Amino acid sequence: MTERVLTGDRVTGKLHLGHYVGSLQNRVILQEQYETFVLLADVQALTTHFEKPDLIRTHLREITLDYLSVGINPDRSTIFVQSMIPEIAELTVLFSMFVTVNVLRHNPTVKSESKNSGLDDMYYGFLGYPVSQAADITFCKATIVPVGEDQLPHLELTRKIVRRFNELYRPILVEPKPLVGDMPRLIGTDGNAKMSKSLGNSIALDSSTEEIAYQIKKATTDPARVHKHDPGHPDICPIYAYHRAFRPNAASEIREGCEQATMGCSACKGLIASTIEQLIQPMRERRSYYAARPRVVDDIIMTGTQRARGIAQETMKEVREAMSLNYFD
Amino acid sequence: MTERVLTGDRVTGKLHLGHYVGSLQNRVILQEQYETFVLLADVQALTTHFEKPDLIRTHLREITLDYLSVGINPDRSTIFVQSMIPEIAELTVLFSMFVTVNVLRHNPTVKSESKNSGLDDMYYGFLGYPVSQAADITFCKATIVPVGEDQLPHLELTRKIVRRFNELYRPILVEPKPLVGDMPRLIGTDGNAKMSKSLGNSIALDSSTEEIAYQIKKATTDPARVHKHDPGHPDICPIYAYHRAFRPNAASEIREGCEQATMGCSACKGLIASTIEQLIQPMRERRSYYAARPRVVDDIIMTGTQRARGIAQETMKEVREAMSLNYFD
Ligand code: SF4
Ligand code: SF4
Repeated sequence: MTERVLTGDRVTGKLHLGHYVGSLQNRVILQEQYETFVLLADVQALTTHFEKPDLIRTHLREITLDYLSVGINPDRSTIFVQSMIPEIAELTVLFSMFVTVNVLRHNPTVKSESKNSGLDDMYYGFLGYPVSQAADITFCKATIVPVGEDQLPHLELTRKIVRRFNELYRPILVEPKPLVGDMPRLIGTDGNAKMSKSLGNSIALDSSTEEIAYQIKKATTDPARVHKHDPGHPDICPIYAYHRAFRPNAASEIREGCEQATMGCSACKGLIASTIEQLIQPMRERRSYYAARPRVVDDIIMTGTQRARGIAQETMKEVREAMSLNYFD
Repeated sequence: MTERVLTGDRVTGKLHLGHYVGSLQNRVILQEQYETFVLLADVQALTTHFEKPDLIRTHLREITLDYLSVGINPDRSTIFVQSMIPEIAELTVLFSMFVTVNVLRHNPTVKSESKNSGLDDMYYGFLGYPVSQAADITFCKATIVPVGEDQLPHLELTRKIVRRFNELYRPILVEPKPLVGDMPRLIGTDGNAKMSKSLGNSIALDSSTEEIAYQIKKATTDPARVHKHDPGHPDICPIYAYHRAFRPNAASEIREGCEQATMGCSACKGLIASTIEQLIQPMRERRSYYAARPRVVDDIIMTGTQRARGIAQETMKEVREAMSLNYFD
């Protein structure tokens, strides 16, 4: 069997450099080796954005532009919309019978949310997030799912649901293997552990040269380093983290220059700004190509969705047969 | 707007006289006045029967024979299969965002179940039963839902979901009105408050003359009435309850004969057995007509499902538009 990779994003906003380092970069590599599917998770975005559905509509195209700009190739990757695959909803409903409330409330993501709002105040759909994720993964029989360490329990639940289904009925669903990335999470320009648009500490994938320069200029550095002759502590500096992420070969040189106070922060920042500019510049070009051709972008999403739908229908047919729900065949 | 009635049954077993008195009889009347939809709730049956899907397959046809035998007219009533309407699953998933866990766990049906098994051990799908019911009702824009008193909270939740949706997006969903029946629940032949196949205290709608006679013969009567000259207490006797249900005009006469010890239990039973036989005899005939024509029965279900599906697709189109999920229109 050829391996099939499923990745994707909740359609809640444009992507940034953190997403690039954490997953997009990897997807561009994976698409060369495997059949890959990229999910635009708009239904899951509704769990937190159901009052602003218009935003999802806009983000859907923006995220697709992000994908295309980083080099996700629509000929190799199937980009598709979750809400346009009714079979995902059907599988979600069927899988709801296989999972107890207990298992869901102890899922780490759900648990961390329930600390904020309490299980009782949680929306039913949010509690079932891992069930709907199992449907996303199984409808296309993905064999590989790239995940962060923190998402391993999610995937384990999908594997459990698949085993349960296959034992109860017929072994038609595929247990996905996790592919745990070794990429560390990119910290924010303010030193926050997480780069996030809403924190204003991120660098968007469509940043202009000026925007990159501005974000890097205002980025936090080692606060102990007031003057150039003060030795710095690169390990607490986001700029150094960016050097490690984007100029790994030059990282030791930067460390030396910082610790020995032979290089000033603004020179250090200049170097990384220029590297990030070099990274983003071709993205900007690809983006402007596609941004000028909205019909082509829509066509990419529609074609991908149609392809995913075909696979979903096949899987659902097998599921119905296995569960004896094919009453009139 | 013409009124549209939704009724239906979980596909968990053949129907009996209790179902006839409690709802089927009423549906036969309703179909003359309203457009009626009859739901074969096979997905909901899976919440408790997911390990025996083959049974559901059989029950689906048996229940349809029950419907046809009591006089549900496929030309006036749309009989359809829940699992064959993917839009119901789609609405279930969307409505999951509008309801908190708290609201669901305090729903009476869910609550009584959670007393048995605890919220934690409950299947996620069972907790969401009222959400999926809201999807059943709204997909076809039912305006009237016949319910027992105990189901009023379910329907109230559907109404809340509809109001929430209509306020958030656009007023396209219809708030269903409850139609509370005045029919009391038929007690079992053993005096149990509920007639139920699994308790062995029910009279199936396809009972033969002998089976009716047997069930009535073995039915409990007032245990204080050992001899004919002992006065009886009709209010604690299931046979008297049946007289009230099926021979209401003669009920006072029966009470008198029983309390004044002028009529023996076996004569009393004979009268009701003959009335039930008269009720069931034409059902048996209609059933044998359809039972000999399985293709006709399948065709009734398929045609009804197709019709329901068409309406579901229209509703879902409106829902997508209202929620701005119609990305490519
Ligand atoms: S020299 Fe570079 S790594 Fe050191 S504190 Fe300044 S910006 Fe950070
Ligand atoms: S006479 Fe009829 S109502 Fe009275 S106890 Fe006997 S069976 Fe019951």
